[in-house]
Amino acid sequence: MIETRIGIVGLGNMGTAHAKYLIQNEVKGAKLTAVADPREERLQWARDEWGEQIKTFGDSKSLYRSGEVDAVIICTPHYDHPAEAMDAFDQNLHVLIEKPAGVYTRQVREMNERAAGCDKVFGIMYNQRTNPVFMKLKDLIDSGELGEIRRTNWIITDWYRTQHYYNSAGWRATWAGEGGGVLINQDPHQLDLWQWTTGLMPVRVRAFCQFGKHRDIEVENDVTAYVEYANGATGVFVTSTCEAPGTNRFEVTGDRGKVVIEGNRLTFWRLRVSETEFNRNFNGGFGSPECWEIEVPIHSGGAGHEAITKDWIRAIREGTQLIAPGEEGIKGLTLSNAMLLSTWTDNWVELPIDEDLFYNELQKRIEQSASNKQVNEHILLDLSNSRG
Amino acid sequence: MIETRIGIVGLGNMGTAHAKYLIQNEVKGAKLTAVADPREERLQWARDEWGEQIKTFGDSKSLYRSGEVDAVIICTPHYDHPAEAMDAFDQNLHVLIEKPAGVYTRQVREMNERAAGCDKVFGIMYNQRTNPVFMKLKDLIDSGELGEIRRTNWIITDWYRTQHYYNSAGWRATWAGEGGGVLINQDPHQLDLWQWTTGLMPVRVRAFCQFGKHRDIEVENDVTAYVEYANGATGVFVTSTCEAPGTNRFEVTGDRGKVVIEGNRLTFWRLRVSETEFNRNFNGGFGSPECWEIEVPIHSGGAGHEAITKDWIRAIREGTQLIAPGEEGIKGLTLSNAMLLSTWTDNWVELPIDEDLFYNELQKRIEQSASNKQVNEHILLDLSNSRG
Repeated sequence: MIETRIGIVGLGNMGTAHAKYLIQNEVKGAKLTAVADPREERLQWARDEWGEQIKTFGDSKSLYRSGEVDAVIICTPHYDHPAEAMDAFDQNLHVLIEKPAGVYTRQVREMNERAAGCDKVFGIMYNQRTNPVFMKLKDLIDSGELGEIRRTNWIITDWYRTQHYYNSAGWRATWAGEGGGVLINQDPHQLDLWQWTTGLMPVRVRAFCQFGKHRDIEVENDVTAYVEYANGATGVFVTSTCEAPGTNRFEVTGDRGKVVIEGNRLTFWRLRVSETEFNRNFNGGFGSPECWEIEVPIHSGGAGHEAITKDWIRAIREGTQLIAPGEEGIKGLTLSNAMLLSTWTDNWVELPIDEDLFYNELQKRIEQSASNKQVNEHILLDLSNSRG
Repeated sequence: MIETRIGIVGLGNMGTAHAKYLIQNEVKGAKLTAVADPREERLQWARDEWGEQIKTFGDSKSLYRSGEVDAVIICTPHYDHPAEAMDAFDQNLHVLIEKPAGVYTRQVREMNERAAGCDKVFGIMYNQRTNPVFMKLKDLIDSGELGEIRRTNWIITDWYRTQHYYNSAGWRATWAGEGGGVLINQDPHQLDLWQWTTGLMPVRVRAFCQFGKHRDIEVENDVTAYVEYANGATGVFVTSTCEAPGTNRFEVTGDRGKVVIEGNRLTFWRLRVSETEFNRNFNGGFGSPECWEIEVPIHSGGAGHEAITKDWIRAIREGTQLIAPGEEGIKGLTLSNAMLLSTWTDNWVELPIDEDLFYNELQKRIEQSASNKQVNEHILLDLSNSRG
């Protein structure tokens, strides 16, 4: 079997994690052959760990043009994802990007157009799409069990981060370095799952971001967003990095009941007849539809990054459909951008957003970006406690 | 013992309920002596039930001036609460009003001023203030156990009402008849408890009301509101009458942890050290404060209306402090008015609200009020399934 040769671009926290399972041959049909990072100490670490079998490059351009790889996993800082992906497509490489797809939708749209213009397989590391509890929710909605959706409500406030975390690298939590805060760094999975499970993107957004709340940072770390969908349904998304213990509770209400996902459990309150039907026929004053509380069985198994990498390799080698097509990264990013833009303009934002306006507003903040935080050290953080 | 003589004004659902426990001498020191209602059939019903011992009046003015009562419980339609209370105060009577205090804060402010100018005891039927689970939450907050509040979030979407309910009387769910929908009719307890337990009123409100959602009514029956407090904390309030089974979940986050009230259970996630202190001292990358999940014991006992009536009688007879002073009714109503006003103006509403603007906007809707729904019959609904 000729294995698909994989290059990893960016040996930070995530790039290193991907390299480790690839080097252990955990992804059938794939072989890590090269890595790129501008930091010589990271390349030296790779050589020390893996020896000569892995080629090391000081820049991604050389890796893409080396002939050593068929496909690349891009784990650079957020801003660079689209440009790196486009360069890789141009070199006829398959691409898997880390989330988020980028920082602003204008650059991500350009990336998507480039991907559409070539025949390479383009994936994004939305590994939570393989989490059985969210797969089950999507199944309940897609199959009509929940009925037409009436409300979504996600409280995701358990992204606790300390000032020490923010101080661990100068680029963290800056407009210039990361392009945002909790929305771009911690929430991409939830912003993806919110619309992926429900199949609904809002038509407009009114959001309220707070910047540097209880933390000495310039970006948003506390957000409440209200959204409206085309069918009249509404939604709320609340997120924060400065609360403990925080909450992770996703509620979706439909015409046939309600689902709550919390603590990796999915509970389905199922109406025997739909609310619409009950309301049409009921004539007893007070009363409500008969409702069954159901603990829905959830398959075991996690939502590891390997699952997405395996799926991407399978698509490359066998032509299967991707669980997480790269083109869909723009959806969650659109929500993220819309929430910031609504706050900056103190107004509604209709979707699709005004991409140029967002870009210009972001540029203003990048220009004023302090990036002058007290930096302890540029450290590789132990991600074992993170859902990243 | 000379008992305090009680008159009940309005023999609708609530007035009848109060009369029933008073006639059974369930409130020590109080005696029902008179009732007033413009509907002769309700007075006839009272005479049939209770005989000559209870005087009946076709209008409240006559009751107030009859010399038959020392105190009155006002259970008229919402709009009339302030005018009735003021007339009763002027006749030197103690007053207990049903919730809501009124429909718009301008009239309620006038009522409060009248109450302040006399020495009568003025209460409001906020019986949920005697619910042990909310008393415990207030205790945890007042005593500092939860620390400074950072977020409030109440999802109260289990006020399910069918079209049949709305059709049961022509005045229901109309601007002219009730002055609003779910906020003025179903939510007054929650709008009171939200600020009573936390001790916090917002400084500004941005709300999104939907009118006649899945129901043929003109008033709001689906609301999402975002609020900001003076200390930087934020809050969300979501309510609806057209979802089944709906949710009733109140979460309050503080510097020392989190409380969730749901299903009449109170769970306290208590941090060993406050978030502020943990954040100041932590230097381990990822990490969060040690947190204990505590099931807080809740006294048994309900939140019956009798408890508030007993408390009011005790205050009249013994000079004790009221659990629910009438003057505090304006707080919940302010939130309710602010949510509508924010929707109508599609903008922020700062507190205190512009009372004249609200009044004028409400008048416009009263003038256009259809009140032409298909009416089945003017029935007394069985309230046993209601939290009213």
